[in-house]
Amino acid sequence: MTIALPALSDIASDDIQGILRIENSDKDETTPIIVDMLRSVYPHQQIFGEFCPVNAYIAAPPRDVYEYLADTRSLEEWTYSLRGFVETDEPGLWLAEDRIGKNTSIYTRTVANPDAMTVDYHCAWDQGKHLWMIYLIRVVDAQQVFDKPGSVVLWTNCHHPFYDENPYPETAPPTRPVWVGDFWDMFSAGHQIEMDNLKAICEYRATHNLPIKPEWMNR
Amino acid sequence: MTIALPALSDIASDDIQGILRIENSDKDETTPIIVDMLRSVYPHQQIFGEFCPVNAYIAAPPRDVYEYLADTRSLEEWTYSLRGFVETDEPGLWLAEDRIGKNTSIYTRTVANPDAMTVDYHCAWDQGKHLWMIYLIRVVDAQQVFDKPGSVVLWTNCHHPFYDENPYPETAPPTRPVWVGDFWDMFSAGHQIEMDNLKAICEYRATHNLPIKPEWMNR
Repeated sequence: MTIALPALSDIASDDIQGILRIENSDKDETTPIIVDMLRSVYPHQQIFGEFCPVNAYIAAPPRDVYEYLADTRSLEEWTYSLRGFVETDEPGLWLAEDRIGKNTSIYTRTVANPDAMTVDYHCAWDQGKHLWMIYLIRVVDAQQVFDKPGSVVLWTNCHHPFYDENPYPETAPPTRPVWVGDFWDMFSAGHQIEMDNLKAICEYRATHNLPIKPEWMNR
Repeated sequence: MTIALPALSDIASDDIQGILRIENSDKDETTPIIVDMLRSVYPHQQIFGEFCPVNAYIAAPPRDVYEYLADTRSLEEWTYSLRGFVETDEPGLWLAEDRIGKNTSIYTRTVANPDAMTVDYHCAWDQGKHLWMIYLIRVVDAQQVFDKPGSVVLWTNCHHPFYDENPYPETAPPTRPVWVGDFWDMFSAGHQIEMDNLKAICEYRATHNLPIKPEWMNR
């Protein structure tokens, strides 16, 4: 039997609210609390209101999927509506069109970490100064987490307050009828479609012995 | 107007199934597809069956929250039942007791990346050779994704097949009545309780000007 460490020794125990540990709530006390939190169904707002997680298994090598995603131009393929990526004068900052808007420019800077295999797309409609729409993606080796070859792609968006109100209305095309945040409540489904695209593209290439990251992206 | 890149030029378009892009399904066609995917409620199995995402905002500095989580001993504080962490003879591999089991050892190796602020706990009950229970955590600067100071903690577990059947039964204590995977269906609630602990601890320390990572962990 090991000896407990001085956990929370800097905190007076009756001073901190809402901590639930086996010392103050044993299994018999905690089980009904957990059962009471579980539901057969959960409302959309609870699951996709503040965060929008979309996760998938992809039968393609994780390093290759990472390298593909880490190239901003992959968005031209697997997204629903981002097209015509071209690098701006500012290195690493890409301009494209979001065809879901009318005459809508989208700016993207991809921040990737090859060791952690994180790929974050920092984006914004209309202007490239404040990239507040951040798509947090991470590729994981499926061998580790599912005991089979392939990739797991974890993708989470956070409900930034600018989705609710455009902070830079002066940069929007004057007659555009929509704002990107109008689609927040559809992101779970829209991103699922895009994740399905990503999966279909990567798995097609993997099964046909094509490079996951296509040749033209190396140019 | 920008020019589209040679997206999917290596794939014959009638050869790949299930791709949904604005070129083959315009907004009018896609909107009903998306609306049909959305639900007022989602079944537990769909949301927490294969992946178990638990995400939260914590009002404490992200670098400090990362440093705290990156120390394996933080699990002694914010988890429900992991206690008595002690480093084994193998550097970086920690032994603790999972008090939710009976006489249950849990081994943990923490793999953290300070640049991406990922913290993965590679764990297993009973044996330390194959650490297949992997808790994938990432700390994000809330300023970027929520336009306010603080941290976002993204935490995802994947439903490894070993949760369904213990692959190393010979390492289990002979009379133990439970297996860690018996709790998989409760992980969403159980991990939410632990995330709430983490949030309460970090926010208490932040508001009381205590170090997020307590002094005793630096020894």
